[in-house]
Amino acid sequence: MADDPGVAAELAELRASIDNIDAAMIYMLAERFRCTKRVGALKAQHDLPPADPAREEVQVARLRRLALEARLDPEFAEKYLGFIIREVIRHHEKFPRRPSC
Amino acid sequence: MADDPGVAAELAELRASIDNIDAAMIYMLAERFRCTKRVGALKAQHDLPPADPAREEVQVARLRRLALEARLDPEFAEKYLGFIIREVIRHHEKFPRRPSC
Repeated sequence: MADDPGVAAELAELRASIDNIDAAMIYMLAERFRCTKRVGALKAQHDLPPADPAREEVQVARLRRLALEARLDPEFAEKYLGFIIREVIRHHEKFPRRPSC
Repeated sequence: MADDPGVAAELAELRASIDNIDAAMIYMLAERFRCTKRVGALKAQHDLPPADPAREEVQVARLRRLALEARLDPEFAEKYLGFIIREVIRHHEKFPRRPSC
């Protein structure tokens, strides 16, 4: 791909960092879903709705603030949370709910 | 939301873990985009295409394998990479390219 060996070496170095970060992200995502699965089970057990718009609003504001501190686009931080929450809700909807009687 | 104080406390504990994980994720994403921005600049400088399907194939296979180890849905790991790569390509396309002459 890159004919210049200097460029190829620099690309390889950057990609090694990206791969390390991705591995860490996969393990963090696994842990995050372990937590949200427990939240989902608790909510199903106690007849609480899967989504919680008030909590999500607080999360969005906080992640946007953290993104600014980290020099990450706050719009992207919000997209990230939306992406994760869609998956979490998909998990929660799998839990059988106690019939409302 | 949860009337039972035990349930509310358990939810609060789980959410504190989720919030810690999300903060870490934001800082990791910021670092990942610092790397990909440098990759993007390098590619633009040396007239290399922004997307790299061969590299992406290797990344997908690796992340699916790591996901299995972490007990995360491999489909989700692949969705995560797609989500990130779409953002990376959006960044790369912002870099001015040397005209092909």
